[in-house]
Amino acid sequence: MRNKNRETAILLISCDDQPGLVAEVSYFVSTYKGNIVSSDQHNDSSGAFFMRVQWDMADFTIPAEKIGAAFEPIAEKYNMDWKLKFSHIQPRIAIMVSKYDHALFELLQRNKSGELPGEIVHIVGNHKDTESIAEYFDIPFSHIPITKATKAEMEKKEMDLFDSLEVDLIILARYMQILSADFVDHYPQKIINIHHSFLPAFIGAKPYHQAFERGVKIIGATSHYVTSDLDQGPIIAQGITHISHRDSVEDLIRKGRALEKNVLARGVELHLNHQVLVFGNKTVVFD
Amino acid sequence: MRNKNRETAILLISCDDQPGLVAEVSYFVSTYKGNIVSSDQHNDSSGAFFMRVQWDMADFTIPAEKIGAAFEPIAEKYNMDWKLKFSHIQPRIAIMVSKYDHALFELLQRNKSGELPGEIVHIVGNHKDTESIAEYFDIPFSHIPITKATKAEMEKKEMDLFDSLEVDLIILARYMQILSADFVDHYPQKIINIHHSFLPAFIGAKPYHQAFERGVKIIGATSHYVTSDLDQGPIIAQGITHISHRDSVEDLIRKGRALEKNVLARGVELHLNHQVLVFGNKTVVFD
Amino acid sequence: MRNKNRETAILLISCDDQPGLVAEVSYFVSTYKGNIVSSDQHNDSSGAFFMRVQWDMADFTIPAEKIGAAFEPIAEKYNMDWKLKFSHIQPRIAIMVSKYDHALFELLQRNKSGELPGEIVHIVGNHKDTESIAEYFDIPFSHIPITKATKAEMEKKEMDLFDSLEVDLIILARYMQILSADFVDHYPQKIINIHHSFLPAFIGAKPYHQAFERGVKIIGATSHYVTSDLDQGPIIAQGITHISHRDSVEDLIRKGRALEKNVLARGVELHLNHQVLVFGNKTVVFD
Amino acid sequence: MRNKNRETAILLISCDDQPGLVAEVSYFVSTYKGNIVSSDQHNDSSGAFFMRVQWDMADFTIPAEKIGAAFEPIAEKYNMDWKLKFSHIQPRIAIMVSKYDHALFELLQRNKSGELPGEIVHIVGNHKDTESIAEYFDIPFSHIPITKATKAEMEKKEMDLFDSLEVDLIILARYMQILSADFVDHYPQKIINIHHSFLPAFIGAKPYHQAFERGVKIIGATSHYVTSDLDQGPIIAQGITHISHRDSVEDLIRKGRALEKNVLARGVELHLNHQVLVFGNKTVVFD
Repeated sequence: MRNKNRETAILLISCDDQPGLVAEVSYFVSTYKGNIVSSDQHNDSSGAFFMRVQWDMADFTIPAEKIGAAFEPIAEKYNMDWKLKFSHIQPRIAIMVSKYDHALFELLQRNKSGELPGEIVHIVGNHKDTESIAEYFDIPFSHIPITKATKAEMEKKEMDLFDSLEVDLIILARYMQILSADFVDHYPQKIINIHHSFLPAFIGAKPYHQAFERGVKIIGATSHYVTSDLDQGPIIAQGITHISHRDSVEDLIRKGRALEKNVLARGVELHLNHQVLVFGNKTVVFD
Repeated sequence: MRNKNRETAILLISCDDQPGLVAEVSYFVSTYKGNIVSSDQHNDSSGAFFMRVQWDMADFTIPAEKIGAAFEPIAEKYNMDWKLKFSHIQPRIAIMVSKYDHALFELLQRNKSGELPGEIVHIVGNHKDTESIAEYFDIPFSHIPITKATKAEMEKKEMDLFDSLEVDLIILARYMQILSADFVDHYPQKIINIHHSFLPAFIGAKPYHQAFERGVKIIGATSHYVTSDLDQGPIIAQGITHISHRDSVEDLIRKGRALEKNVLARGVELHLNHQVLVFGNKTVVFD
Repeated sequence: MRNKNRETAILLISCDDQPGLVAEVSYFVSTYKGNIVSSDQHNDSSGAFFMRVQWDMADFTIPAEKIGAAFEPIAEKYNMDWKLKFSHIQPRIAIMVSKYDHALFELLQRNKSGELPGEIVHIVGNHKDTESIAEYFDIPFSHIPITKATKAEMEKKEMDLFDSLEVDLIILARYMQILSADFVDHYPQKIINIHHSFLPAFIGAKPYHQAFERGVKIIGATSHYVTSDLDQGPIIAQGITHISHRDSVEDLIRKGRALEKNVLARGVELHLNHQVLVFGNKTVVFD
Repeated sequence: MRNKNRETAILLISCDDQPGLVAEVSYFVSTYKGNIVSSDQHNDSSGAFFMRVQWDMADFTIPAEKIGAAFEPIAEKYNMDWKLKFSHIQPRIAIMVSKYDHALFELLQRNKSGELPGEIVHIVGNHKDTESIAEYFDIPFSHIPITKATKAEMEKKEMDLFDSLEVDLIILARYMQILSADFVDHYPQKIINIHHSFLPAFIGAKPYHQAFERGVKIIGATSHYVTSDLDQGPIIAQGITHISHRDSVEDLIRKGRALEKNVLARGVELHLNHQVLVFGNKTVVFD
């Protein structure tokens, strides 16, 4: 997953554990002259099997668009859920943001410098504060304010926009609105949020205030897939920073910023490199 | 607070913030020829003031037993809560333990090597598993098993024991019993527990199982003073370690051990060096 | 030191340790009705004494410009080196940069959001790559390319520029040139660099290549004051990140970026909040 | 690699990268009804290939002692270096120690509690200080003091002892002697040391003193295989802890202890679980 200059194919598999799975998949790749550059697997204690295999397409004898059909019989034999991805196909990304700009800046700067793959095709703000940043990075920006009364309508507008743009991933970069279940269900495992606490501690609003009240000595941030249960979706990445009694709520907010943006960028990077498999409410992260 | 070979006095103060506090206290020390080796203070946003000042006793002109009386007028003037401690007076420590021996070993080995001050005067186990360890370190051990029926009686026995030993601190080194409110109230800010989670996440029983179920990417441990609210007491120290989907519950338990014992030892060390002040349900830790 | 909305004065002192120092300084502050909001000190094992005291100017009876003269007799009595700073006076900052933009972005974004104090008055690039960023943040930019032949002349030009702008701090945000001793000596303790290794490991060029060759499992970054000895100046802050055999040199460079910019911002923040005292080749950091 | 209750076989392979390697190895395992519980590989940028595959022996149709012969043709075809290990065969371990007991205690306590696999068959001390610990854990102890004059003779005695005990791994648990090249060469990749610095910083004697002098803000520890170049062997694991100007050399020594013992135990655990492959002067760690 690190050989970024090569064109590679990535196969992500989940199914019930059975003997012969690794052999059958790797044999498939090598039969058609694919050199495996990365292969990882996981056997869950519940009997589930997960695999990620990545191979160089340079000498692979099946063209990209026909690999799926060629693999189908193996997938059926083992009753696999599977996805096939290619490193040279750039995922299309939308970012939703409110007033805070630190997480947005981080994503844009990393994307521009090539650290973060993908094409950021649109930024939606429920405030106008970040419009000039979008301009600087030359990314279309829509100002879509939300009120209780307009929420359903505005979400519809956002979904139409994202669907017309064929968006693969929606990143909530400190987007301060709770998305409706309709919206969330429309993009399963395609919305990544950053929550500014070490989940499951301090779910919901104002986690830094909650952390200050409790007197913890460490604060955290969590990037996770959004589900219709608030702050309960599958966790991708977490990070922490140490604090002390000297830190006011404002200090926590300030210190938390660096944490939030780095943990969000980490979660997004793992997703975009096709290193994450979701099962139930948890993730397998092949890193 | 680090000059361990010198005899030093440590004054811990809390009161309402008022101008002149630092000056008055440091002037008191210097008037009697005490050289301040460490001085720290904290102004809480609520208007509370906390101070810790430590000075060399070598040339101090008031003998240890008379310092309190000499300081009393200043304390009254500012309506201070205050404590006076001396680095050369070894606190008397009791340890309560069940079957796990890792946290106990850590405390005993650190104490023996001089890392952890104090005199460990007794170990109480509700199982006999750790008796030979106590023997090896030459510390009296009492086996006091607890059942629902005998709990009140046994706790009475423990309190009598600890009171007769004039114990200053009780450490719960993975002691798997919940202490009664009577017991806890008898030793305010004198019982330190290690909880094997990143509080306030995963309160109560089996936190590693809870962490596994939630699919977190980091686990933690918390050392805190025990109050009658389970796992809700003032936090002294916290630590974390990274985990992955590969880790089973058993792996979390194993990885958590190193974390637990180190975070407990850290909390105990801070307490024994008189670096912790409790206010409400939080701590000021002067480190 | 965290009460950013109040106007405060900060006094930084170093001298030989003597009894009465803390008392005398805090008495001075309280005599003129200054409420101490933060006070910290350090006694080095070599007999040196360091102190940082910060007080609220709201009720202080000496106006800011006369405090120095009022304190002078105490300073002379104890033969102190001392500096007086004010939280409401914004330090004037210049940034030097080459082609990499991640550290520059970090500093500008934190400064704009109020996390990092000071006024960034100029950016100098020896390449033009970051000019548009300067424009976006509305900060004057000079393109001053350096060759062996022009180095002395160009450094003269930079010094003239910085002096005319009355710059208090020069930040090397991954500036890929070695500054001459003349330049460095002109700004003692006023130039902060980020070195992309865990100093003193991997001094000099290409530290990530060196780290890769050695097969380390952790990489680091170090922010330090620049002296005429390359990468040998007093260290202000350090940070690390874990790596594995999977990481190529390119991965180290990529992972190092987040580390570099955060450790640089941390070092700069400590300096700008007047929390750093240099002694010999080391720092006292009052945090 | 975590399913410790199952009997598993572990195959470790290094060779030149060639298409079909993963397929061929996994096919071999599945042909004989081995269910793969863990499989990991690494392609070095230099063209080297590394693989670790672990399978359940429960239904495997080749008995343990005949697997090698069955795998030999594949190994020859690809010109592999390979090792076959079994999770139920306990490695035989010797520990060498001087006066410090913290690292020794950690290893013994973890081994006793089942965290660390293997059988500790002997402890050699060049001082007698730790003899009673060996007794407590019921492990034979030899006191073998070393002087310049007796070094060759004593090392011969140690080698005879370890060879007669068929030792698989020698752990230097803060053993304060430099081993001769003869000794080291006799146990290639079979001696693990803990160096109390963040290598390659502070090689050689008194690293904490060196760290104090340099004024670093983080200290480290490194577990590595011993080679005849002092502190230059392949690194297995590293860890760090934050320090400040307040920490004296004695504080670094004290804080370093917890670090040393945990990083040593981590390196030993990885080795004993057959998760480490050495190539050149670096390691591949499959964790």
